[in-house]
Parts: sequence; C-alpha cells; structure tokens
Amino acid sequence: MRTGAGAVHPLRPGAVTIGREIRPIAYPRGEVRASDFRVAEVEVGKPRPGEVLVRNTWTSVDAALRLRLREKAPPGYFPAFPLDEPMDGIMTVGEVVESRADGFAPGDTVWHASGWRDYAVVDAESRALGGVGTLTKLDVHIAPPQAHLGVLGSGGLTAYAGLFHVADLRDGDVVWVSAAAGAVGSLVAQMAKIRGHRVIGSAGSDEKVRYLLEELGLDAAFNYKCGALPDLLREAAPGGIDVYFDNVGGDHLQAALGALRRSGRIAICGMISEYGTEEPPHGPTNLMLAVTKGLTIRGFRGSDHTHLLPEMRRQMGAWVREGRLHYRETIVDGLTQAPAALAALLRGDNTGKTLVRIDGAPHRENADG
Amino acid sequence: MRTGAGAVHPLRPGAVTIGREIRPIAYPRGEVRASDFRVAEVEVGKPRPGEVLVRNTWTSVDAALRLRLREKAPPGYFPAFPLDEPMDGIMTVGEVVESRADGFAPGDTVWHASGWRDYAVVDAESRALGGVGTLTKLDVHIAPPQAHLGVLGSGGLTAYAGLFHVADLRDGDVVWVSAAAGAVGSLVAQMAKIRGHRVIGSAGSDEKVRYLLEELGLDAAFNYKCGALPDLLREAAPGGIDVYFDNVGGDHLQAALGALRRSGRIAICGMISEYGTEEPPHGPTNLMLAVTKGLTIRGFRGSDHTHLLPEMRRQMGAWVREGRLHYRETIVDGLTQAPAALAALLRGDNTGKTLVRIDGAPHRENADG
Repeated sequence: MRTGAGAVHPLRPGAVTIGREIRPIAYPRGEVRASDFRVAEVEVGKPRPGEVLVRNTWTSVDAALRLRLREKAPPGYFPAFPLDEPMDGIMTVGEVVESRADGFAPGDTVWHASGWRDYAVVDAESRALGGVGTLTKLDVHIAPPQAHLGVLGSGGLTAYAGLFHVADLRDGDVVWVSAAAGAVGSLVAQMAKIRGHRVIGSAGSDEKVRYLLEELGLDAAFNYKCGALPDLLREAAPGGIDVYFDNVGGDHLQAALGALRRSGRIAICGMISEYGTEEPPHGPTNLMLAVTKGLTIRGFRGSDHTHLLPEMRRQMGAWVREGRLHYRETIVDGLTQAPAALAALLRGDNTGKTLVRIDGAPHRENADG
Repeated sequence: MRTGAGAVHPLRPGAVTIGREIRPIAYPRGEVRASDFRVAEVEVGKPRPGEVLVRNTWTSVDAALRLRLREKAPPGYFPAFPLDEPMDGIMTVGEVVESRADGFAPGDTVWHASGWRDYAVVDAESRALGGVGTLTKLDVHIAPPQAHLGVLGSGGLTAYAGLFHVADLRDGDVVWVSAAAGAVGSLVAQMAKIRGHRVIGSAGSDEKVRYLLEELGLDAAFNYKCGALPDLLREAAPGGIDVYFDNVGGDHLQAALGALRRSGRIAICGMISEYGTEEPPHGPTNLMLAVTKGLTIRGFRGSDHTHLLPEMRRQMGAWVREGRLHYRETIVDGLTQAPAALAALLRGDNTGKTLVRIDGAPHRENADG
C-alpha cells in the first residue's frame, strides 16, 4: 500500500513500517556528490514512554551540514555525521503518528532534529542542536509547516540573533549582507530594512541581485562575480559600512574589514566559501584594521541563542503576517534528492531556504509475521 | 650655558632657546634604523594665550609608533608621521616652563603628546591622541613622573580597558597574555592575577619567562621560541583558555583561536609581529572556529577608551600603592637614543615600559639679537 501525500499515516497494530534514511557513506572530497550517500530502508521503531513517532514531511538543507560531512567537524561545532548511520541534528518538520509523550497527539505538526529520513522516533525531552531541535509543536496558522524550517525556524533564529544581538545593530548603521538571497541573508537584509537601515546585499548571480533590489527593496546590491569585491562594495557603500553580516568568509571578510567604519561590527554566521576546501584558505591579511578601527568580530551559531526563539517567533511572525517580511523557498521533491539539493545549495543554485519535500515519497507497509 | 638635569628651566626674557627634535627622514624598510631619523635643532617658540611651554623630561617609546613610520598608516589609525617634521602624538612627560593657560604654572609636571623633542609649546585644549594626550597635570605623589607614561598612562589605560572592557573578563576565565613581559602585557597579566584568574604569559626569552613566573607570579609561562606554539600553549593551559590578550598577532592569534573555549574572547591590542612587514602576512586560517565556538574578537586602542582614564588611575594607582601591581622600565638615556630604543623594543630587547630620559640632554641658550 502506498500512503497518500500529506495524509496522517496511522500505523496498524501488528504492522511493520519501512522507512528510508539518507546516510553518508563517504566524506565528500570537494563537491558533495550523490554517490557519497546511500538510501537505507529500515524498520520504523515503536515509541517508548516519553517518545513520539513522527512521519517527516519536510527536511532542511543547510550549507553548514557540509562541516559535518568530514572525518572531523571543526572543534566546537556539532560532531561529524558517522558513516552509514542516519544523520542526527538536521531540522525537520513532520506529523505525529503515535505519541507516548505528554503534550503530543497524532496529527500534531512538529519540528525536531532527526531529518533526512521518512520516519523518526523522537525523545520529547531531547535537547537536540543545543535546544533548537527539541521536539516542538508548531502553530501552522502563522505560517505553513515548512516555514518553520526557514523564516520561523533555526534560519530565522540565526538571522534574528545575528543581526540584533551578535552584530548589535545600532541606529544609522549601514549594513552589508553577503549571500543576501540565501535563507538567512534574505531575512537579515529585510529586517535591517524594516528597522530603517541602509542595506547593501551581495549575491552570486544577476538574477539574485534583481531579487534583492526589486523584491526585497535593498538600497544597493551587486553580483560579487562581476568585479573586484572592494570596488563593488565601495560603489554600493561609498561612505563605508558599519555592520557586515558574513555568510561567505574569505575575500568577502577581507573586503568588509576594509570597508568598515570605526566601531564597526562583523557577525560571522558562516563561511560558505571555505566549507568544501580540504585546507582552509588563509585568513584576511588586514585584521590589523580591527585594532586601528576598533572593530568587533563575533562568530555565532543560531543554536547559541535558543533563548531568543520565543521573541524571534513573535517578532518575525508578526512581520510575516503583516506582509513586511518575505521569504522564498527552493523546494526539491523527494527525500532521495536531499544530497543533490545540498550540492546545489553549496554551488549557489538556490534562493531563500532550501527544503526537501518528503510528502509522497514511496514507503511500504507490510503485515507483521 | 648648560641647564642642569631635572631643573626647571626658566627662560630669560629676550633669550632664544634652542631645542632638539627627532624627525623621521625616511620610512624604515623592515627594521628601524637610526639613519631613518635626524636631530633637528630648532628655536623654541613662545606660548600664546591658551598655550604652555613644556621642557620634556621623559618620552615614550611604543611599538605602535612603527605603524606611523610608513608612507601611509593603516586606515583608522593615527596618521603617518610626516618626514622631516617633529613627531606629534607621542606621550611625553615634562615640566611647565611658562604658562599662558589657566590651571598650569611653571614647575608643574604634566603629560602631553608632543614627544621626541626637548621642548614643546602645547595648546592646553588640544585633544591629542583621542584625548589621552591632552595636556594634563600629574600627581607625582602617586608615582614618579615617568610612571605616568606607563602604568598610570596610556599603557595602563590600554591594559585596563583591554582586559576589563574589551575582553570582558569574567569569573573563572583562564587568560593568556602574549608579550607578557612588555609594557602593556605585564600589567594585563598582573591585573588578571589580582582578580584571581589563572594566567598564562608568553614572551621571547627565558629571562622574561623567569620574570613572569618569579616576579609577576603567573601560573604558567613559556618562551614562544622554544617549540610549536599550539603545543606550548596546550602544555600551559591543558583545558584551554577563555581570554587571549593579543600583542603579537600572526601565529599567536592562530594558536589562540585553536585554544579558546566556547564563548572565548580575544582583545587585540597590537600585532607586533606584523609591524615591520611590507606585505601583511596572511591571517589565521582557522577563523571558522570563531563561528563554531562562538568567539568574539575585538580590536582596540587605549585612546578609544579615554573615558576610563579616571577609573583606571584610581584603581591601578591603588594597586601600585598597595604594592600589588609592579612595573619595570627599560630606560634609555638621551633624546637622540629614541630611534635606537624603538628598534630595540621592536626586536624584543625590553622588559616593561621603554622610556627615553631627556634630562641632562645638552641644549643651548643664546642671547637674542
């Protein structure tokens, strides 16, 4: 039997359900390839007391997953994904099939951190991903389920915490956001606009630049592939910048150090330019400017700011409802396409949040014994 | 006539006084050489209303002067010293000879920022060096005049602001100070000890390491020339560090990023390893650790924190009086030795604050007309 897309899927007593998991089987060298993964078919377990069985419907694809597809993740980061095991610590939305935990009932839409698979048995108390990934019932009246993986999820938290807390946004700041058409960058850029700032965005294609100017209404935007970065930045922000929201690292970080004004701030959210490299490239040669201009550089992960989740949801939910905060999704259909979706994201072939829709994926149900 | 050392030197009416100035005549390539400077003999001017004539007795020698002995100082920093002009913006102590400004009288001991010369006519209102160098009457009962160029001066301010405000020192932090036998580093290390922290110091000679351990009482210290920096640091701080006070940059900064624990902080005070280089060396290759470990990196100059001067003097003055805060001086005699003193400092041939004593320098006085 094949279960229809989107339907809650009650397990029959005495039945065995087979679900698929995407498992890494080799750590990519350079570009991520589908052949670095396999699809495992596994028997779906039963929830024990305190646990919930979830049928996943949407699963997240994030550039930073690349940091865990290595023998050893960078110190301080979430651990590497073990080979040939399901990938734990990827945000996912699904529907509760069976619950043995208080507060959860079949049909509830939830998020949790056991992604890249059809089904997951989740411990309701487990504080996955520093607490961001704890099993949470979602209010789908605010926004559709998958939005909770983007604008109202960990991406939203990363953008919100990064702009308002890490970068310590101040009145009058001129803000540069790199990868500004991406899942996090597009939220950061819009929120800075909502707060009345002059915002410059950069991206890797003319189409994305048009999106930044025409749909997100940024004050200036440029395609970083179309010139020398310091020149492009100077043209977009002749008087310099006060805040740089870094998703890219490398030459972007170097250019920001050059363009920042006194007491400027850099929030380093990610360094996508460096994720696929075996040997990290050399750092900026102009860090001395941090001394001479009194700059602050702070790295962060959204999951370091879990305490801001309620505030973020309230504020960003309001902006979404008011139509002031827009978001785009790059949707890839089918669980087995997740590795290809990640590779595309790392190549820059995405706008907004990259999501895999698991709905409609084939799965079988067999009578037990 | 020759004026005796240390005596207040009243100008005779109608006399012309000749003073010497050290002037750069070429920007050093690599090492600083005496031949990059000349001694100019100039007629000492008369103070106009609001000005004070000061006979300098001590003048400061700072590693960061090297940043201004260039065609172009780093953006955001104090400007380059123009060739064949007196060097403005160097802290100096002296005695008022003649005053036409309220609040200053002959015989007063003052500091100001017109150093590397025998005499200076100083505008009492001028906020030199961001205000740190404003003409200020000194209390020589707290400490001898030259201490106001070190522990109670801009070096003290740099140490105090850097440790308590920029690095945001928190209970239990393990602190690493590089160039810990230097003017600023030795104060930072001692203040962290006074506040009860575990403190690791590094320096460039075994003698300095002994000074750090035996006289300053640090918990661990190492000579960075005696091994691989990450290994030396791991041995001194097996559990990692929480704060790194950077006076060196380069490989020291890279090692710190590796050793810092989650939410660690780096205060970059200077990068002496990079001052003499024509092309700045590549930055740290491991900046991504700032993201994964949630690190904060802040550059600063003491002069960005002038508002802390009274607090710093009160607190550090008390520690000096109580015998809890020690300082050493590397004293070089004779104004004309200032360039050699700077070269020695940049080579690391100093402990504590490097000072030039101008007292006793020859100067002539001729009858006018």
